[in-house]
Amino acid sequence: MARYGLVLRVRPEYQDSYIEYHKAVWPDVLALIRDCQIRNYSIFLKDHTLFAYFEYHGADFDADMKKMAASEAMRKWWDIMEPMQEPVPTRKPGEWWARMDEVFHAD
Amino acid sequence: MARYGLVLRVRPEYQDSYIEYHKAVWPDVLALIRDCQIRNYSIFLKDHTLFAYFEYHGADFDADMKKMAASEAMRKWWDIMEPMQEPVPTRKPGEWWARMDEVFHAD
Repeated sequence: MARYGLVLRVRPEYQDSYIEYHKAVWPDVLALIRDCQIRNYSIFLKDHTLFAYFEYHGADFDADMKKMAASEAMRKWWDIMEPMQEPVPTRKPGEWWARMDEVFHAD
Repeated sequence: MARYGLVLRVRPEYQDSYIEYHKAVWPDVLALIRDCQIRNYSIFLKDHTLFAYFEYHGADFDADMKKMAASEAMRKWWDIMEPMQEPVPTRKPGEWWARMDEVFHAD
Protein backbone atom coordinates (compact mmCIF):
# COMPACT_ATOMS: atom_id res chain seq x y z
CA MET A 1 0.00 0.00 0.00
CA ALA A 2 1.24 3.49 -0.85
CA ARG A 3 0.06 6.67 0.84
CA TYR A 4 -0.48 9.79 -1.24
CA GLY A 5 -0.61 13.40 -0.02
CA LEU A 6 -1.51 15.94 -2.69
CA VAL A 7 -2.09 19.68 -2.77
CA LEU A 8 -4.18 21.92 -5.01
CA ARG A 9 -5.94 25.28 -4.68
CA VAL A 10 -9.62 26.03 -5.08
CA ARG A 11 -10.47 29.38 -6.67
CA PRO A 12 -12.14 31.45 -3.94
CA GLU A 13 -15.19 32.28 -6.03
CA TYR A 14 -15.85 28.55 -6.58
CA GLN A 15 -15.15 27.31 -3.07
CA ASP A 16 -18.81 26.96 -2.03
CA SER A 17 -19.67 25.16 -5.23
CA TYR A 18 -16.69 22.83 -4.83
CA ILE A 19 -17.85 21.94 -1.32
CA GLU A 20 -21.41 21.30 -2.49
CA TYR A 21 -20.28 18.99 -5.31
CA HIS A 22 -18.19 17.02 -2.85
CA LYS A 23 -21.11 16.48 -0.52
CA ALA A 24 -22.68 14.40 -3.29
CA VAL A 25 -19.99 12.97 -5.51
CA TRP A 26 -21.57 11.01 -8.36
CA PRO A 27 -21.93 7.28 -7.61
CA ASP A 28 -20.15 6.24 -10.81
CA VAL A 29 -17.19 8.46 -9.89
CA LEU A 30 -17.03 6.92 -6.40
CA ALA A 31 -17.24 3.42 -7.90
CA LEU A 32 -14.43 4.20 -10.32
CA ILE A 33 -12.17 5.51 -7.55
CA ARG A 34 -12.74 2.27 -5.68
CA ASP A 35 -12.22 0.22 -8.83
CA CYS A 36 -8.87 1.99 -9.26
CA GLN A 37 -7.74 0.61 -5.87
CA ILE A 38 -7.94 3.88 -3.95
CA ARG A 39 -9.11 3.63 -0.33
CA ASN A 40 -9.50 5.89 2.69
CA TYR A 41 -9.62 8.99 0.51
CA SER A 42 -10.18 12.34 2.22
CA ILE A 43 -9.98 15.93 0.99
CA PHE A 44 -9.41 18.73 3.48
CA LEU A 45 -9.77 22.48 2.92
CA LYS A 46 -8.45 25.59 4.60
CA ASP A 47 -7.67 29.04 3.18
CA HIS A 48 -8.58 27.87 -0.35
CA THR A 49 -5.95 25.14 -0.15
CA LEU A 50 -7.07 21.57 -0.76
CA PHE A 51 -5.18 18.67 0.72
CA ALA A 52 -5.98 15.15 -0.47
CA TYR A 53 -4.95 11.97 1.33
CA PHE A 54 -5.54 8.45 0.06
CA GLU A 55 -4.13 4.97 0.15
CA TYR A 56 -3.42 3.10 -3.06
CA HIS A 57 -3.76 -0.66 -2.83
CA GLY A 58 -3.11 -1.65 -6.42
CA ALA A 59 0.08 -2.71 -8.18
CA ASP A 60 0.30 -0.17 -11.02
CA PHE A 61 -0.71 3.36 -10.09
CA ASP A 62 -0.06 4.84 -13.54
CA ALA A 63 -2.21 2.18 -15.20
CA ASP A 64 -5.03 2.79 -12.72
CA MET A 65 -4.81 6.55 -13.31
CA LYS A 66 -5.03 5.94 -17.05
CA LYS A 67 -8.11 3.81 -16.47
CA MET A 68 -9.59 6.64 -14.41
CA ALA A 69 -8.84 9.23 -17.09
CA ALA A 70 -10.43 7.01 -19.75
CA SER A 71 -13.76 6.95 -17.93
CA GLU A 72 -16.45 9.17 -19.40
CA ALA A 73 -17.96 9.82 -15.96
CA MET A 74 -14.64 10.94 -14.55
CA ARG A 75 -13.90 13.15 -17.54
CA LYS A 76 -17.30 14.84 -17.07
CA TRP A 77 -16.56 15.29 -13.35
CA TRP A 78 -13.13 16.77 -14.07
CA ASP A 79 -14.62 19.10 -16.68
CA ILE A 80 -16.65 20.62 -13.86
CA MET A 81 -13.92 20.52 -11.21
CA GLU A 82 -10.92 21.84 -13.12
CA PRO A 83 -12.21 25.37 -13.74
CA MET A 84 -12.79 25.64 -9.97
CA GLN A 85 -9.22 24.60 -9.22
CA GLU A 86 -5.82 26.19 -9.56
CA PRO A 87 -2.72 23.99 -9.45
CA VAL A 88 0.23 25.11 -7.36
CA PRO A 89 2.96 26.68 -9.53
CA THR A 90 5.57 24.20 -8.27
CA ARG A 91 3.71 21.11 -9.49
CA LYS A 92 5.72 18.70 -11.59
CA PRO A 93 5.14 18.21 -15.34
CA GLY A 94 1.98 16.18 -15.85
CA GLU A 95 0.62 16.87 -12.37
CA TRP A 96 -2.64 18.65 -11.58
CA TRP A 97 -2.84 17.77 -7.90
CA ALA A 98 0.82 18.16 -6.84
CA ARG A 99 2.23 15.26 -4.88
CA MET A 100 3.82 16.08 -1.52
CA ASP A 101 6.67 14.21 0.15
CA GLU A 102 5.88 11.97 3.09
CA VAL A 103 8.28 13.04 5.84
CA PHE A 104 6.75 11.05 8.72
CA HIS A 105 4.52 8.07 9.27
CA ALA A 106 3.44 6.12 12.32
CA ASP A 107 0.86 3.33 12.18
CA MET B 1 -12.98 7.39 14.77
CA ALA B 2 -12.33 10.99 13.73
CA ARG B 3 -10.03 12.04 10.90
CA TYR B 4 -7.85 15.10 11.31
CA GLY B 5 -6.21 17.18 8.58
CA LEU B 6 -3.91 19.92 9.85
CA VAL B 7 -1.67 22.51 8.23
CA LEU B 8 1.49 24.27 9.42
CA ARG B 9 4.55 25.85 7.78
CA VAL B 10 8.18 24.87 8.23
CA ARG B 11 10.65 27.74 8.15
CA PRO B 12 12.76 27.26 4.99
CA GLU B 13 16.07 27.44 6.82
CA TYR B 14 15.00 24.59 9.13
CA GLN B 15 13.37 22.35 6.56
CA ASP B 16 16.29 19.92 6.25
CA SER B 17 16.59 19.65 10.01
CA TYR B 18 12.85 19.09 10.38
CA ILE B 19 13.03 16.25 7.86
CA GLU B 20 16.01 14.66 9.63
CA TYR B 21 14.30 14.76 13.04
CA HIS B 22 11.24 13.09 11.55
CA LYS B 23 13.27 10.24 10.11
CA ALA B 24 14.03 9.24 13.70
CA VAL B 25 11.27 10.45 15.99
CA TRP B 26 12.11 9.57 19.59
CA PRO B 27 10.60 6.25 20.72
CA ASP B 28 8.95 7.79 23.78
CA VAL B 29 7.26 10.40 21.58
CA LEU B 30 6.00 7.67 19.24
CA ALA B 31 4.75 5.64 22.20
CA LEU B 32 2.94 8.67 23.61
CA ILE B 33 1.21 9.40 20.28
CA ARG B 34 -0.02 5.84 20.23
CA ASP B 35 -1.05 6.01 23.89
CA CYS B 36 -3.12 9.10 23.03
CA GLN B 37 -5.15 6.96 20.57
CA ILE B 38 -3.70 8.44 17.38
CA ARG B 39 -3.25 6.02 14.48
CA ASN B 40 -2.22 6.14 10.81
CA TYR B 41 -0.41 9.44 11.29
CA SER B 42 1.42 10.91 8.30
CA ILE B 43 3.07 14.27 7.68
CA PHE B 44 3.55 15.48 4.10
CA LEU B 45 5.66 18.39 2.90
CA LYS B 46 5.75 20.57 -0.20
CA ASP B 47 6.82 24.19 -0.67
CA HIS B 48 7.52 24.55 3.07
CA THR B 49 3.94 23.61 3.87
CA LEU B 50 3.34 20.68 6.20
CA PHE B 51 0.15 18.70 6.06
CA ALA B 52 -0.64 16.22 8.83
CA TYR B 53 -3.22 13.46 8.58
CA PHE B 54 -4.17 11.13 11.43
CA GLU B 55 -7.05 9.13 12.81
CA TYR B 56 -8.14 9.55 16.41
CA HIS B 57 -9.62 6.44 18.00
CA GLY B 58 -10.19 7.69 21.54
CA ALA B 59 -13.27 9.20 23.17
CA ASP B 60 -11.93 12.53 24.45
CA PHE B 61 -9.53 14.28 22.10
CA ASP B 62 -9.00 17.31 24.34
CA ALA B 63 -8.12 15.09 27.31
CA ASP B 64 -5.68 13.09 25.19
CA MET B 65 -4.06 16.29 23.93
CA LYS B 66 -3.68 17.48 27.52
CA LYS B 67 -2.04 14.17 28.37
CA MET B 68 0.30 14.66 25.44
CA ALA B 69 1.18 18.21 26.48
CA ALA B 70 1.88 17.05 30.05
CA SER B 71 4.55 14.61 28.89
CA GLU B 72 8.12 15.71 29.49
CA ALA B 73 9.33 13.90 26.35
CA MET B 74 6.75 15.63 24.19
CA ARG B 75 7.50 19.03 25.67
CA LYS B 76 11.19 18.50 24.89
CA TRP B 77 10.30 17.44 21.34
CA TRP B 78 8.07 20.48 20.83
CA ASP B 79 10.78 22.76 22.23
CA ILE B 80 12.92 21.66 19.29
CA MET B 81 10.15 21.60 16.68
CA GLU B 82 8.36 24.87 17.37
CA PRO B 83 11.20 27.23 16.43
CA MET B 84 11.37 25.41 13.08
CA GLN B 85 7.68 25.92 12.46
CA GLU B 86 5.47 28.86 11.60
CA PRO B 87 1.72 28.58 12.15
CA VAL B 88 -0.61 29.82 9.44
CA PRO B 89 -2.02 33.28 10.26
CA THR B 90 -5.62 32.03 9.99
CA ARG B 91 -5.27 29.42 12.71
CA LYS B 92 -7.90 29.51 15.45
CA PRO B 93 -7.14 30.62 19.02
CA GLY B 94 -5.28 27.87 20.83
CA GLU B 95 -4.17 26.14 17.62
CA TRP B 96 -0.59 25.58 16.50
CA TRP B 97 -1.27 23.12 13.72
CA ALA B 98 -4.43 24.60 12.16
CA ARG B 99 -7.25 22.16 11.62
CA MET B 100 -8.66 21.93 8.08
CA ASP B 101 -12.25 21.07 7.16
CA GLU B 102 -12.94 17.64 5.73
CA VAL B 103 -14.90 18.27 2.51
CA PHE B 104 -14.85 14.72 1.13
CA HIS B 105 -14.32 11.20 2.31
CA ALA B 106 -14.66 7.80 0.68
CA ASP B 107 -13.67 4.57 2.43
